[in-house]
Amino acid sequence: MPRASVREVIVETAVQEIHKYGYAACSVDTITKAAGVPKGSFYNHFKSKEDLGAEVVRRYAAESEWNRTTPGLSPLERLRARFTTMKDILIGNEYTRGCLIGNMAAERADHSDVIRTQVALSLTSWSDGITEEIEQAQAAGEISEKLDARQLGRFVLNAWEGTLLRAKADKNTQPIEDFFTVVFDTVLR
Amino acid sequence: MPRASVREVIVETAVQEIHKYGYAACSVDTITKAAGVPKGSFYNHFKSKEDLGAEVVRRYAAESEWNRTTPGLSPLERLRARFTTMKDILIGNEYTRGCLIGNMAAERADHSDVIRTQVALSLTSWSDGITEEIEQAQAAGEISEKLDARQLGRFVLNAWEGTLLRAKADKNTQPIEDFFTVVFDTVLR
Repeated sequence: MPRASVREVIVETAVQEIHKYGYAACSVDTITKAAGVPKGSFYNHFKSKEDLGAEVVRRYAAESEWNRTTPGLSPLERLRARFTTMKDILIGNEYTRGCLIGNMAAERADHSDVIRTQVALSLTSWSDGITEEIEQAQAAGEISEKLDARQLGRFVLNAWEGTLLRAKADKNTQPIEDFFTVVFDTVLR
Repeated sequence: MPRASVREVIVETAVQEIHKYGYAACSVDTITKAAGVPKGSFYNHFKSKEDLGAEVVRRYAAESEWNRTTPGLSPLERLRARFTTMKDILIGNEYTRGCLIGNMAAERADHSDVIRTQVALSLTSWSDGITEEIEQAQAAGEISEKLDARQLGRFVLNAWEGTLLRAKADKNTQPIEDFFTVVFDTVLR
């Protein structure tokens, strides 16, 4: 039975390496080297690099700071606080990396059904969370009930993923400011 | 003096190959093989793979069907027609590939300033074009003049780039339908 801690250190290292360098630029060799584990141990824990890639997507979504809630806020304030947390992380990283899941969609969705499926699941789980907060904001009278909360939840997440791409290209805060202004002043009202 | 046609066939092939497989998954070797030119001829035309990558971004933007205009439409109808053209191409490709420039932003913006600069220029040129049409739609009374056309032009392009990522992950038309409904019914009005 392989030690759980070796698997764990491989996954945690792979999240960092793939987020930083991209999937194709990382190999089982570079990941196990960075993790400080023997390359041979990799296949005790994963069938393939692709198998690890899907686990990296799942882990990144599960551990995202996005999931942290701030108590005492209204539903709409809570949604804004989540995006503000992500914005602060992006600025802290000097607009590098972006969203690992968006990057994986761009790079791997056409070439690995295992990774694509996990990317789609993670994005759906995020947009479902946004929808839930929009519905609560509608019930609290913060957002018009005439709008389709499910559609808005999906649109807002997709707009955010595009915002992160643009910020990665421009290396400045303008795309994020554009997102906050248009989404919170025009779309969600 | 190297023949212009060899350079041309390398660029055209690289646009196709990089759009299909991603930048890291293509090499000078695979590109020259696909182009049917000797590998040695590559360096008569390009300093490096990165140099070709920047040219690929420029070429993709310059040749995009986005640039095709439909005569006889109002400014807002023209903008919608451009996005409809891009939507039809995406559906024709069965939701694969997405936007080469968005993919390059995701994959290369942190690792190549030459490519990142060209990605940022191309995105700015596209969002400037959207801004121009929004301004004309405002002048024609199709969109409220209270909205900031420059900000909306950037936001709409970024939202579209995120929409393409989501469609690539989900392999269905829903992200695109969400984009059209929210952008044309709620954002631009």
